[in-house]
Amino acid sequence: MYTVFGDMLSGNCYKVKLIMQFLEIPHQWIHVDILAKETHTAEFQQMNPNTRIPVVELAKQTYLWESNAILNYFADGSTFLPQDRYERAKVLQWQFFEQYSHEPYIATARYINKYLGLPQEREAEYYSKQAGGHKALALMDRHLANNTFFLGTQPTIADISLYAYTHVADEGGFDLSGYPHIQRWFRAFETIPGYIKMARENA
Amino acid sequence: MYTVFGDMLSGNCYKVKLIMQFLEIPHQWIHVDILAKETHTAEFQQMNPNTRIPVVELAKQTYLWESNAILNYFADGSTFLPQDRYERAKVLQWQFFEQYSHEPYIATARYINKYLGLPQEREAEYYSKQAGGHKALALMDRHLANNTFFLGTQPTIADISLYAYTHVADEGGFDLSGYPHIQRWFRAFETIPGYIKMARENA
Repeated sequence: MYTVFGDMLSGNCYKVKLIMQFLEIPHQWIHVDILAKETHTAEFQQMNPNTRIPVVELAKQTYLWESNAILNYFADGSTFLPQDRYERAKVLQWQFFEQYSHEPYIATARYINKYLGLPQEREAEYYSKQAGGHKALALMDRHLANNTFFLGTQPTIADISLYAYTHVADEGGFDLSGYPHIQRWFRAFETIPGYIKMARENA
Repeated sequence: MYTVFGDMLSGNCYKVKLIMQFLEIPHQWIHVDILAKETHTAEFQQMNPNTRIPVVELAKQTYLWESNAILNYFADGSTFLPQDRYERAKVLQWQFFEQYSHEPYIATARYINKYLGLPQEREAEYYSKQAGGHKALALMDRHLANNTFFLGTQPTIADISLYAYTHVADEGGFDLSGYPHIQRWFRAFETIPGYIKMARENA
């Protein structure tokens, strides 16, 4: 039985829950409270020295961290990760795009707003995230104008990676009404069998 | 013949050059000047709408971007990317660590200092990068205390990803003298057949 250490309200952790749901992988979920600094204990750092969630225990003392690496591990051999070499690289291209050009804007703005309650000392940082977030959203919307999912007609882990924080981008102050293709993609993604909403009671 | 669009002084582009060298893959290199905004032309955006280097043209009108996705594409089937599912996921874990917890600190500080000449209006940002950069370096140094390379005794693309900006971290103001295992790893990495230095004349 796999153990996932995470918080369902973190998009990075929610990604792991989604692949477990879509592939019906039995697992237990241990909630980790990042605001209480539970990722900084000596015990946690034995699992992930980078003090972040999610972490998956694959076997006794065998851990894997970084949400997108975890997705690749579990999706291998399923339709969520194509076999073709170029398509696999394209999945990774979108996942690295997500971690570098999307998450640092959209997820960070959401964190400052939703988790921290937009404190005054972080307002400037919060507003500075808007331009980069909209650049990523606009790029995604243009791509989805011609593609049902990121790799074409079938959903892959690239969609899971990008859905996680995009579908709650409004919580970071991003108005999605100008991105019709992203909204259409949300509806397609939410029909994948096993889909569940991002809520702590679903963990 | 593959075409790489990049700048050898960018660590992300240098990664691509290194895998081409290590695997003896014929290619041509087209220099792109980011300060002259050559990544923002309509022609460039046809290749990469995210306006970043490197980009590789794999075949006519077939492009791949994101340095670590490119490494995975070329290394597939070689010793630089293990076949074992857990080891492949560990390679990705380190590559996502590099893009999220290393590059935004170390590469960005270097960019502000080396490319832009540390202008006064970016000094605060430059100094704000130090703590995150040292956190990443300390984590790497501890890991390398017990491992020749990131995945063990054989070099993989995880090493290429992390070597690229770490070996020039001093250009971002990071003193590496306190990281003896990183320095030992540099020496091991630099003996891989085909290794070349990061210099524009080597592109």
